Amino acid sequence: MKAVIITIGNEILSGLTVDTNSSYLGRELAAIGIPVVWKTAVGDNPSDIIEAADLGLKAGDLVVCTGGLGPTSDDITLNVLSKHFKQKLVLNKSVFEYLRSRFAKRGVEMPACNLKQAMVPEKAKVLFNSQGTAPGIMFRFKHKKLILLPGVPREVKAIWQEGIRSGLERSPGRRFILSTVLRTTGIPESAIAEKLTALEKTLNPGVLAYLPGQLGVDLRVTLHGADRKSLDKQAGGIIRKMKTALKHHIYGSEGQTLEEVLGLILKKKKLTLGLAESCTGGLIGDRITNVPGISRYFMGGIVAYSNRIKEKMLGVRAQTLVKHGAVSAETVREMAQGAGKIFKSDIGLSISGIAGPDGGSALKPVGLVFIGISGPKGIKVIEKRFLGPRRQIKEMAAQAALNELRLYLGNGSK
Amino acid sequence: MKAVIITIGNEILSGLTVDTNSSYLGRELAAIGIPVVWKTAVGDNPSDIIEAADLGLKAGDLVVCTGGLGPTSDDITLNVLSKHFKQKLVLNKSVFEYLRSRFAKRGVEMPACNLKQAMVPEKAKVLFNSQGTAPGIMFRFKHKKLILLPGVPREVKAIWQEGIRSGLERSPGRRFILSTVLRTTGIPESAIAEKLTALEKTLNPGVLAYLPGQLGVDLRVTLHGADRKSLDKQAGGIIRKMKTALKHHIYGSEGQTLEEVLGLILKKKKLTLGLAESCTGGLIGDRITNVPGISRYFMGGIVAYSNRIKEKMLGVRAQTLVKHGAVSAETVREMAQGAGKIFKSDIGLSISGIAGPDGGSALKPVGLVFIGISGPKGIKVIEKRFLGPRRQIKEMAAQAALNELRLYLGNGSK
Repeated sequence: MKAVIITIGNEILSGLTVDTNSSYLGRELAAIGIPVVWKTAVGDNPSDIIEAADLGLKAGDLVVCTGGLGPTSDDITLNVLSKHFKQKLVLNKSVFEYLRSRFAKRGVEMPACNLKQAMVPEKAKVLFNSQGTAPGIMFRFKHKKLILLPGVPREVKAIWQEGIRSGLERSPGRRFILSTVLRTTGIPESAIAEKLTALEKTLNPGVLAYLPGQLGVDLRVTLHGADRKSLDKQAGGIIRKMKTALKHHIYGSEGQTLEEVLGLILKKKKLTLGLAESCTGGLIGDRITNVPGISRYFMGGIVAYSNRIKEKMLGVRAQTLVKHGAVSAETVREMAQGAGKIFKSDIGLSISGIAGPDGGSALKPVGLVFIGISGPKGIKVIEKRFLGPRRQIKEMAAQAALNELRLYLGNGSK
Repeated sequence: MKAVIITIGNEILSGLTVDTNSSYLGRELAAIGIPVVWKTAVGDNPSDIIEAADLGLKAGDLVVCTGGLGPTSDDITLNVLSKHFKQKLVLNKSVFEYLRSRFAKRGVEMPACNLKQAMVPEKAKVLFNSQGTAPGIMFRFKHKKLILLPGVPREVKAIWQEGIRSGLERSPGRRFILSTVLRTTGIPESAIAEKLTALEKTLNPGVLAYLPGQLGVDLRVTLHGADRKSLDKQAGGIIRKMKTALKHHIYGSEGQTLEEVLGLILKKKKLTLGLAESCTGGLIGDRITNVPGISRYFMGGIVAYSNRIKEKMLGVRAQTLVKHGAVSAETVREMAQGAGKIFKSDIGLSISGIAGPDGGSALKPVGLVFIGISGPKGIKVIEKRFLGPRRQIKEMAAQAALNELRLYLGNGSK
């Protein structure tokens, strides 16, 4: 079974939108053993959409289209393709009811143009969209399958996970691609490569990939084969060797976030946390509270953007601020202690730095960040320097703070 | 003049790499008046590459390929296409010297496989690559142009900027594409469409596009034509009509964030802000502090994740919490007042809600959020309901809070 992906939308051709749907679908299809053999993008016009669909059905057994299912007049995918493939559109009552209840829940009456989205091909399978109003559509044409999905990435993901994936997993003739990821942070790509030199010599080319990102390097192991079990075994062996070589630099596996790992550690050790953020402005608290159920361990935070607040709420001494400045080891030390005290938490985590673009000096340049941790193992202060624009410095600083807390709590990869 | 973009590489089909090159090239080509009419991606195999190139030359006058120019054996683009289009490969001395000096600078001898990259079509124009080893190649075939570029994004950008762009800008028969964006939030796509019905009737198809995102709908006006000035004038007229129809729902223009707009309003009105966040966990503070120089207006925030902190630090009355609960109009009212008091700020902005996935009830479901604003115009409390997973609810809640504050401060689209 081979797949073709067609992305529909003028904004894709003009480059105003980066097409992440087709990469997502490519990975998902590969993961269940259905390779994508061709991808194409066309604008919102009937003849190009039809030509792409015809070519797609020649090249593959499964054609997945994204885009153009919205309620407005520039969304023409369903009308064009159902006409071309002689699918009669009828009003689908359950879609209609779902749309109406969706609007009702928000206390809004359903606009007339959304009615269009309840018109689906009579013989199609309707794919429920828990994230939006446009349902996905699946229909057959001459023993081949077409799937139409909306263009909003989170809707594509939801429909795929909830309504398509498991069905395709049962189709015959698949070849497996197994892919696992280990996540690292706080160590540069080249240092990882040095630690993995010996292992890499034993691997075929393409098996190990470095995926460097702003907040860390992900390491992906990819194996191909017809037997899922033997692939799992092979991958397990490689992963074990990587863990031995990289130790605490690995914080998690595919899809796991640093804050999730930290949440697990706090839960396991039954420790509570209070925050005192300055340069990150709330980003650390935001990340920590992405973890469901964290309210039992996370007490709260203070975004102390002014010196007055650092002094008044966190109890940083005036003389510390005067003598060492707001961005200093001494200040984050007292901020961390203050956070622990005010939130009555086992741990106080603090951060202060210069996010830029202004406010730097020769002695304290933009990107200088101090992290303070106060807790059962005493007080630890870490100095870091980051390069980049304001947002990037904030993100790297928050990542470093979460990672330093993970290391302070003595929990490496497992 | 019309362009086609072909992306070559198995990693693109399998989704392991997101194709950002074609978006970059799409934007760049559009900016100099050469629209992209078709995009396609094929794997590293000769017949697919040839088929795509042939189809590309039918659809456009300029075909730009990226990927497959590297030194390794899976990089076959140049060999395959030069053979197919009968271009004789010869050793190019200046490329050879450049490659050798590049390796010499790093103190490394040039690997034999890189020699391949100095073999270029005899009649082609060689495009210098300041960022890597593979030069770009441009050659003509039957009055049409083919450009071959490597796959590494920064190399594509360098070759484009340094060797292609200005040449194409001089080519005749270009048509300009003008594109402007207005940003809205707090109003669904379909409601916007209803307000713009009259305007849309006066526009050609494709001129107005709805770009719905999780936090709002962007509206893009795209115009094509040969005269830049008249396009500007036309766009101005359309934008004015859209602003009249949508009023305060428009918060900014292309690339502007809601927090930037809010920062400008605070600055203009010389107002200071203090925050009290619960369900958003710090996200509002994080967004506000993305704006450089905001520290003069943003005093700080309290992430009051527990009731104790709401009471103790923000001064919410115990009986309010008991009687109405932490997620209630009454609580956010007192939180907003408390934030204004503790931060000595002109405005206190507060939020409390149920981010889920647990913690909801029939009366107070997941997604229920209250926003409080206390300031010179008195106290305002807004109730909202959002649907979606935890992260999404947090993001929509933070967006709504920032937007409600913008509306409270009386500042619409400008």
